[in-house]
Amino acid sequence: MNAKMPSKKRRYAVVGPGAVGGFYGALLARAGHDVHFLFHTAYEHVVHHGLTIESKDGDFKLDSISAYNDARAMPACDVVIVALKTTQNHLLPHILPHILADKAAILLLQNGLGQEERIAAIPGVRTVVAGLCFVCSTVLGPGHIRHLDYGRMQLSQFKTAGEPAGITPLMHELASDLHTAGIPVQLSQDLVLQRWKKLVWNVPFSGLSVVLNADTSRLAADPHARRLSRSLMQEIIRGAASQKKRIAKHFVEEMLADTDSMKPYYPSMKIDFDSGRELEIDSMFGVPIERAKQAGTEMPGVSMLYDQLRFMVQRRDRDRSSVT
Amino acid sequence: MNAKMPSKKRRYAVVGPGAVGGFYGALLARAGHDVHFLFHTAYEHVVHHGLTIESKDGDFKLDSISAYNDARAMPACDVVIVALKTTQNHLLPHILPHILADKAAILLLQNGLGQEERIAAIPGVRTVVAGLCFVCSTVLGPGHIRHLDYGRMQLSQFKTAGEPAGITPLMHELASDLHTAGIPVQLSQDLVLQRWKKLVWNVPFSGLSVVLNADTSRLAADPHARRLSRSLMQEIIRGAASQKKRIAKHFVEEMLADTDSMKPYYPSMKIDFDSGRELEIDSMFGVPIERAKQAGTEMPGVSMLYDQLRFMVQRRDRDRSSVT
Repeated sequence: MNAKMPSKKRRYAVVGPGAVGGFYGALLARAGHDVHFLFHTAYEHVVHHGLTIESKDGDFKLDSISAYNDARAMPACDVVIVALKTTQNHLLPHILPHILADKAAILLLQNGLGQEERIAAIPGVRTVVAGLCFVCSTVLGPGHIRHLDYGRMQLSQFKTAGEPAGITPLMHELASDLHTAGIPVQLSQDLVLQRWKKLVWNVPFSGLSVVLNADTSRLAADPHARRLSRSLMQEIIRGAASQKKRIAKHFVEEMLADTDSMKPYYPSMKIDFDSGRELEIDSMFGVPIERAKQAGTEMPGVSMLYDQLRFMVQRRDRDRSSVT
Repeated sequence: MNAKMPSKKRRYAVVGPGAVGGFYGALLARAGHDVHFLFHTAYEHVVHHGLTIESKDGDFKLDSISAYNDARAMPACDVVIVALKTTQNHLLPHILPHILADKAAILLLQNGLGQEERIAAIPGVRTVVAGLCFVCSTVLGPGHIRHLDYGRMQLSQFKTAGEPAGITPLMHELASDLHTAGIPVQLSQDLVLQRWKKLVWNVPFSGLSVVLNADTSRLAADPHARRLSRSLMQEIIRGAASQKKRIAKHFVEEMLADTDSMKPYYPSMKIDFDSGRELEIDSMFGVPIERAKQAGTEMPGVSMLYDQLRFMVQRRDRDRSSVT
């Protein structure tokens, strides 16, 4: 396993090792990288049983990993992979200062808009690289992750005011480590453009999977849900244009074709909804709506989905609290 | 009961005596009017047990009514109350010619747009008066109707090309009969304007009650569902404007306030959805969207609700058929 040991050794931390962070962290650890995992509820289980990955590319198990349940016990790390849900990002100012080495970089594996700004503002954070993950994976239980499909990570570096940061040396270094772990990597110059492109798929399929209680293939196969998804995608492209980020119109049809060829899949927002967990409604819907609006562009369909999701979550939580 | 017998006796038919037609037909019959009911599935039950109305204004029972299950057995009637679901209007050309007296009028108790045109085109139909019903009523079983709230009927006469027909003598005659039966009546000059005004409430509350699985008071009380309802109402007002029908903006707040003071209520579209019946999606959503679009006005939120409803009905019906 250590045959692919990288020449220059960077120490990694994974904050929030769930379906995404746990999967990529496990791949890095398997490849011999020095990876330190900060767990929350799964800590006890992982200490005793390690990490189990069922992957379409081959199952594997890491019997012993460097697991923590307190950031203060962790060593300083050169790359901190942040893979919490965005709804947990308020915890980061209490975590990151304990584990950031000098010149450390954040590798942010989250969806939606507006999180880089928040994280870059935390004292001690110098550099944020976003890793947009095109991966279908899910948590089956504590320390148990299933990787269903895809797996590509697209790196872009954060720069204030939404400017493209170009391809930086740091991005090449991270890509090199990720490659040794078998992770397909793309480099992109313009983070904000990529975030909006990802929203083109995420907004309709995450939102409608919850509101219409349906998986991706059912949504893509039904003529009305498909038309609606297309219309939402076009809105997101107009929203992106309001931020001076151009997405070609044919991107919509590419995304629909990709969805057709995807295995039937419940997006993580749907799984979160069904599990009673918080949904990333703000970063995935609220912030994009707000930014487009400030630039004079309304996204009425996306706004409607936002209100529907808020209603459904509020009712779910009220119904639940009235039962207990 | 016959004390209020009208001076000039008009013979009534009720085609589709369900929650609305059955309720108003029963009120007319109770007041001594000559009312002939064309039933479908409830026929046998009604012949043996009559009609039972539980009403907030007082319960009553009609032990013996003139019930039919075949239009060919019915006498010619001066006023034919059409209260089928709009999805059943394709049956009318096979029914109406058998029961229309010379100079007969249709009193159309349906929601949505575009039905008057269809019905006016049926051979033998001379006049169509629409009765917009502001009533909460529901079918509890065969021949058994519960009247929960409200009850007002607003009459407007149909004229081609959406022109206001004014207040006609026929409308006064119908109003007179309805008054004798205790039905509050309003007369209105402009049918199309009134239809759009009714859509202002029906589109958000009927549509969202299905998509969000919620009653009217839950929708009105939740800040996000309320904001969404308001936004859909504003869209309908813009759609009406595209048809040269002006609805004041404060009408939205009036409708929301009305909903606040209404008893919690599942609109009939929601009851139809849960019962596996057809939904009036075309007349209530499809036709308004199409008419506004032809006039250059998009209603993106209403269109989204349309697609969501179509998806939900299609899945409901597919799931059901795959079980049997």
